[in-house]
Amino acid sequence: MLQDLTLAVFGPGLLGGSLLMDARALGVREIRAWARRPEAVADLERRGLADFASVDAAEVARGADFLVLATPVGAMEGLARAMEPGIDSPDAVVTDVGSVKAAVLRGAGRVFREAGVAFVGSHPMAGSENNGLGAAQAGLFRGAPCLITPEEDSREEDVRRVEDFWRALGAAPSCVDAAQHDRIVARVSHLPHLAAALVTIAALRDEPGVAEFAAGGLRDTTRVAAGDPGMWCEIVTQNREAILPALTDLHRITGELLEVIRCGDGGALLQCLEDARRLRATRYP
Amino acid sequence: MLQDLTLAVFGPGLLGGSLLMDARALGVREIRAWARRPEAVADLERRGLADFASVDAAEVARGADFLVLATPVGAMEGLARAMEPGIDSPDAVVTDVGSVKAAVLRGAGRVFREAGVAFVGSHPMAGSENNGLGAAQAGLFRGAPCLITPEEDSREEDVRRVEDFWRALGAAPSCVDAAQHDRIVARVSHLPHLAAALVTIAALRDEPGVAEFAAGGLRDTTRVAAGDPGMWCEIVTQNREAILPALTDLHRITGELLEVIRCGDGGALLQCLEDARRLRATRYP
Repeated sequence: MLQDLTLAVFGPGLLGGSLLMDARALGVREIRAWARRPEAVADLERRGLADFASVDAAEVARGADFLVLATPVGAMEGLARAMEPGIDSPDAVVTDVGSVKAAVLRGAGRVFREAGVAFVGSHPMAGSENNGLGAAQAGLFRGAPCLITPEEDSREEDVRRVEDFWRALGAAPSCVDAAQHDRIVARVSHLPHLAAALVTIAALRDEPGVAEFAAGGLRDTTRVAAGDPGMWCEIVTQNREAILPALTDLHRITGELLEVIRCGDGGALLQCLEDARRLRATRYP
Repeated sequence: MLQDLTLAVFGPGLLGGSLLMDARALGVREIRAWARRPEAVADLERRGLADFASVDAAEVARGADFLVLATPVGAMEGLARAMEPGIDSPDAVVTDVGSVKAAVLRGAGRVFREAGVAFVGSHPMAGSENNGLGAAQAGLFRGAPCLITPEEDSREEDVRRVEDFWRALGAAPSCVDAAQHDRIVARVSHLPHLAAALVTIAALRDEPGVAEFAAGGLRDTTRVAAGDPGMWCEIVTQNREAILPALTDLHRITGELLEVIRCGDGGALLQCLEDARRLRATRYP
């Protein structure tokens, strides 16, 4: 399938750049890439990651039958408006890699819907705390869950093409609706991110002389707090509705545990630690 | 120094077992080891990790001039009573590897004090979420911070011998008092542990169909929650006084962040994420 594809990737960051590397390795027929800055376009050309690269989104969209938005979510609606006039393949399907989905459907999704262009959102759950093309790597999506969020009127054929694309890159696609997607990532991605920031602050801000003794436990627990604050601020803002109940739960059970420890209720403390270990083992055996 | 040492290690778990491996590799003159169960003694003998191994703590203590308690902290006072009658070297110094220190001084420390045996607590900050001799590894202490907790009347010579011992194993010793030690580990070790359990529960307990989509972020944030619940229950109980203010801080700032997100205060959210990244980078650049 990939050998017949003209692929256009918009935004050569960690995810977009990794996509381009995989596309090259998998023998995609033609690779087109858009970047916001001329220097980024030059970088793509120097690395041989695209057959055609430009800052002109409509130009990059031309002739492409599979288009991927890989910018921060906040930039997607504007990008959709800029690229849409260039989409000229009758089979064109657009997807994205944004980590929230209801907001993408309300923004870029609506632009494509109004223009009669097929759009099916997706979210490959891969990445790291690093950003940019420099952090991109071939094979990044291998083994990663990839949530695909068709709408009620999405054509089966378009959904299948998006699934097949991610499967070709080694990811494991699953379809859920956008609201369910947002609730899932609020729990398994955004909540751990906020918790990592909170633990970092609670551990290191107010007690002097503590940081130098921090070892692997704190390092791993807070790893994701090294992520780009601006990007995460945007994600949290966009997924606010789903994050609030998750963070409320965390706040409530933290208060409950505090009370358990304050009262010296060893049985309840043990139960909490055992519950956590058991729940965790269901996913990470 | 190690070539002249008769070393006795009590409790061949992750830390004690790793100690025995290092001691062998570093050419310690004589290695003695105590284990609670006869099968564990047989295991030590089969692996060649001790020159003499026994379930009789006093017998293992005989002739040793450097003795290390490596059992769970709750077992140390009883162990101290059992081994103390066997300590017969005039130069004997006892230390431990417990992850709380005020409780160890009140328990095992008092036994040795009353018997006139030198005891200087230590806490090498190495380990993993795995336990037991099977998880032990040579070189575990290399590069690990090691907090040593002399008391006001500790002899300088004894403190220096404990520091030199850990330095020989590659750890980086620092002296602090026991209360300060307990405040430090409450922040950099026990708080992340409790947070990992809380995040696991908040992420995975109540929202169905979530676990299968959890990726590397949740895995790392909650890694330490895979640790032994019984052991951690004991640690938290023993360090309750220092953990309560740390967990209270976490609870309070979680409530503050919840309010920030509820109000849509993007500036304050960004500030929180930036503070966390900056604080974290002071320790993990």
